[in-house]
Amino acid sequence: MKTLIKNVNALLPDGTTPVTNIMIEGDRIEAVGEVPEGYQADKVIDGKDHLAAPGLVNAHTHASMTLLRCYADDMVLMDWLNNKIWPTEAKMNDDDIYWGAMLAAAEMIRTGTTAFADMYGPYMDKVAEVTIDSGLRGVLSRGLIGVAPDSEEKLAENIALYKDFHGAGDGRVTVMFAPHALYTCPPDYLKKVSKAAGEYKAEIHIHMSETQGEVENCLKEYGKRPFAHVEATGIFEHGTLAAHCVHLDDEDIAIIKKHGIRVAHNPGSNMKLASGVAPVPRLLKEGVCVSLGTDGASSNNNLDMLEEVQLAALLHKADTLDPLAVTAAEAVKMGTEYGAQAVGLKDAGKLAAGAQADIVLYDMKNTMWCPRHNLVSLLAYSARSSSVDTVLVAGRVLMENHELKTLDEERILFETQRCADRLTK
Amino acid sequence: MKTLIKNVNALLPDGTTPVTNIMIEGDRIEAVGEVPEGYQADKVIDGKDHLAAPGLVNAHTHASMTLLRCYADDMVLMDWLNNKIWPTEAKMNDDDIYWGAMLAAAEMIRTGTTAFADMYGPYMDKVAEVTIDSGLRGVLSRGLIGVAPDSEEKLAENIALYKDFHGAGDGRVTVMFAPHALYTCPPDYLKKVSKAAGEYKAEIHIHMSETQGEVENCLKEYGKRPFAHVEATGIFEHGTLAAHCVHLDDEDIAIIKKHGIRVAHNPGSNMKLASGVAPVPRLLKEGVCVSLGTDGASSNNNLDMLEEVQLAALLHKADTLDPLAVTAAEAVKMGTEYGAQAVGLKDAGKLAAGAQADIVLYDMKNTMWCPRHNLVSLLAYSARSSSVDTVLVAGRVLMENHELKTLDEERILFETQRCADRLTK
Repeated sequence: MKTLIKNVNALLPDGTTPVTNIMIEGDRIEAVGEVPEGYQADKVIDGKDHLAAPGLVNAHTHASMTLLRCYADDMVLMDWLNNKIWPTEAKMNDDDIYWGAMLAAAEMIRTGTTAFADMYGPYMDKVAEVTIDSGLRGVLSRGLIGVAPDSEEKLAENIALYKDFHGAGDGRVTVMFAPHALYTCPPDYLKKVSKAAGEYKAEIHIHMSETQGEVENCLKEYGKRPFAHVEATGIFEHGTLAAHCVHLDDEDIAIIKKHGIRVAHNPGSNMKLASGVAPVPRLLKEGVCVSLGTDGASSNNNLDMLEEVQLAALLHKADTLDPLAVTAAEAVKMGTEYGAQAVGLKDAGKLAAGAQADIVLYDMKNTMWCPRHNLVSLLAYSARSSSVDTVLVAGRVLMENHELKTLDEERILFETQRCADRLTK
Repeated sequence: MKTLIKNVNALLPDGTTPVTNIMIEGDRIEAVGEVPEGYQADKVIDGKDHLAAPGLVNAHTHASMTLLRCYADDMVLMDWLNNKIWPTEAKMNDDDIYWGAMLAAAEMIRTGTTAFADMYGPYMDKVAEVTIDSGLRGVLSRGLIGVAPDSEEKLAENIALYKDFHGAGDGRVTVMFAPHALYTCPPDYLKKVSKAAGEYKAEIHIHMSETQGEVENCLKEYGKRPFAHVEATGIFEHGTLAAHCVHLDDEDIAIIKKHGIRVAHNPGSNMKLASGVAPVPRLLKEGVCVSLGTDGASSNNNLDMLEEVQLAALLHKADTLDPLAVTAAEAVKMGTEYGAQAVGLKDAGKLAAGAQADIVLYDMKNTMWCPRHNLVSLLAYSARSSSVDTVLVAGRVLMENHELKTLDEERILFETQRCADRLTK
C-alpha cells in the first residue's frame, strides 16, 4: 500500500517547513521530496494549506483515568487521593478500564497523538486491546505498588502483559515494567522488579522526584536522594523512562546522564498539582532526552499534547525569567522526536525516509494559523489541537478530515458516561 | 425580538450549572428558568448537550497585532522590538489596522469572546468600524506615547475617537483614554491626558508594572514606585483598567484598592515574555477586580481567552506551590464576570435576568467534555475553545453551529495574509 501526501508544508528534522510531498510505503516513509515520474499511489491525500508534522508522543499518562476527569478538582492532595481518587479506582472493573482507555484513544487521535506511554492497572490487557484496535502505538505497563498486599500478583500481571502483548499489533504495542515510585515500592521490591525486567529485557517506566516531599522523605528514610536510592536497586540498568523529575540536584542529573534515563516532563500536571517546576532548560542543555506527557486526566485534565508543548514553551520562560528558556522549536521536538526516543520507539518521531509513518496534518485554513509567518512558532504558540484533521500511524489513516476511522466515538462517549456514573454515584 | 435557549446547562452566578432555559428579549436576558405557559419566541436554540456561559471578556489586547502573530518569536525583548515589531508597525496603514482587527474579531467570536478592551493605533476608527460590523463589544483606546514627536496629535486622535465612537453601535463601542505606560509618557503628558479624560468623563486604560525593570527605572528616575508616581499625575481619578500589574508591593496594592483600579492579568503574555508572575491570589483575596487578557497576538500568540482562563488556574498554583491558589470557579469568573466589570460594562458578564445577553454555548458532545462530573472544572481545566459553537452578543447571534453570521472569514484570511506579506516582505 502506497500513500502520497502531496503539496504539504512538512516539518522536517532541521526545523524547516517547505512545501513538498511525503511518500509512504507500508508502515514507513519511503521518501520526502519530489514525486518521481511514474509514481503510482494507492491513496492520495491533498496536503494544501496543511502542515504535516511528526505525531505527538504522550510519554506519560494513565489513559483509563479519563473516567475521573474533573471528578474532583481544587482539593488538597491527600484529601483528593484518600476520599475521591483511590476509593473510586478501587471500584474499577475491566469494563471501566476498557472504556476509559477508549475515551483516551479517541481524544488522543483527535488531538494528534500517535503514541502513548501508559502506566495503570489492573486489566491492562484491555488497554492493549484498545491500542491494537484504535491503531495507536502504546507503550504499556502495569503500575506496581510494592506496599500493596498483592504486590507479587501485580508483578505477575506485568510479566503476563509483557508475554502476551510485547510486540503485538504489528509491533505497535510494547510493554515496560512499571514500579510506581520509590515511596510505594520498598527497595527489596524494586530489586525484584529489576530482576524480572532483566530476565525479559524489558525497560522501566517509573515516577521519580515529583514532589519536594518525596525527596525529603527519601533522604530521611534511606539517607539518599531518590535517584541514588533507586540506582542502588538496579532499576536503572534496563533503560528507563522517568516521569516528572521535578526536584533534581547535580547528583541526580549526573545519574540521569550516566544511565541515559529519558525524562517525561508533565508541565500541566506539575502546575495543577503545584508540584514545582522541573529544570528542563538545564536538562536540554546537558543533552538529556526530555519528552512531554499529560499525566492522567484527573490531574491535567485532558490528553491534549499540543497544550503540553505550549506549556513547556511558556512555563520555563516564566520560571527562569529568560524569554529564550525553551524555544518553539525545542518544545515541538520534545513533543515529537524526543518523545519517540523517550518511550523507546525506533525510527519514529521524524518526517524522513525510513522513519515510521506516524504523521499528523494540521489544517491551517483558520484564524489561529493566520498569517503564516513561521509555521513552527504557529504550532507551538498559537495553534489548537482542533486544527488536527488527519492522523496516520504506521501508514494507516486513523482520522481523515476530522472523521475517526477506527473508533465509534458516539458509543465511546455513551459508554464512558455510563461507567463514570456507576463509579461515582 | 425574543430568543429562547432551551434545555441548556446554564452556568449561573452562584457557580451551579442546572439544565434550564434562557429567555432573551432584545439585547437583554429576560429570565432564566421555567418557560412560562404561552411564551412565544421568535427564535429557539436547542441547548441540549451544551453549556451556556457568560461571554469571555478579553480585558487587554492589541487586536490589529494579529498581523504580526508569529512574525518574530524567541528573541530578546529589545532586539524583538527594535528590529522586528516597531519597524513593521511603523509601516501599518488603515487597511492593515482594519484587516488585523477583522482577523482578531473572527478569532474572538470563534473562541467565545464577546467583548474586548483594545489599545492600539493609529486608525482606531477602523477598529471601531470592525467592532460595529462584527457585532462584538469593543472598549477602544488610542495608545498614547508621550515621548513621540506627535504626542499631541495622538491625544487629539484619542479625543476624536471618543467623540466619534463612544456609545456607537447601540452602545457596544465605548472609548477609554490610553496613556501607554509611565516609561513612554512623562509626568506632564500624563497630567495632560488626565485633564482630557476628566473633561470627557472617559476612563483610562494603561500598562502598569509589567516588568521589574519598569519598577526599578521608575524608582531611579522619579524616586517613587510606578503606582505612586502615576497616582500623583491624577490619572487614577477617572476609573482605571490597569494591564499586567506583575510587580506589586503593599503600597501598590493599597493604591489599587484606594482607586478601585481594575487589573487585567495576562498570564500567557507574562509567561512568554518572562515578565514575572502577578500576585493574583492575593489581589483576589483583597477584593481587587482581576480580569484576564491575551495581550497582543505577537506576545501570546493567539486571542483564545479560554486558554487564559486555564493558564490563570494553573500558573498561580505553580508559582505559589498551593494547589488551591486559583480555583476553576475563580478563573472562570475572572474570564467572564470580573472581565465585564473591569472593562466597564454595566450589567454584563452574568446569566441573570436583566443582564446583557452576551452568551456562549459550548458543545459538550466530545471527548474533552466527557464524562460530565463537573462542568465548571471541565470548562477551566479540560475544554477547548473549539467547542464554542454558538455566540450571542446583546441578544444577536454572531455565530451559530460554528458558522460566523456577521463576518466573511475566507476573505478575512486572504486579506490579512496579503497585508502581512506586504508589511514583512
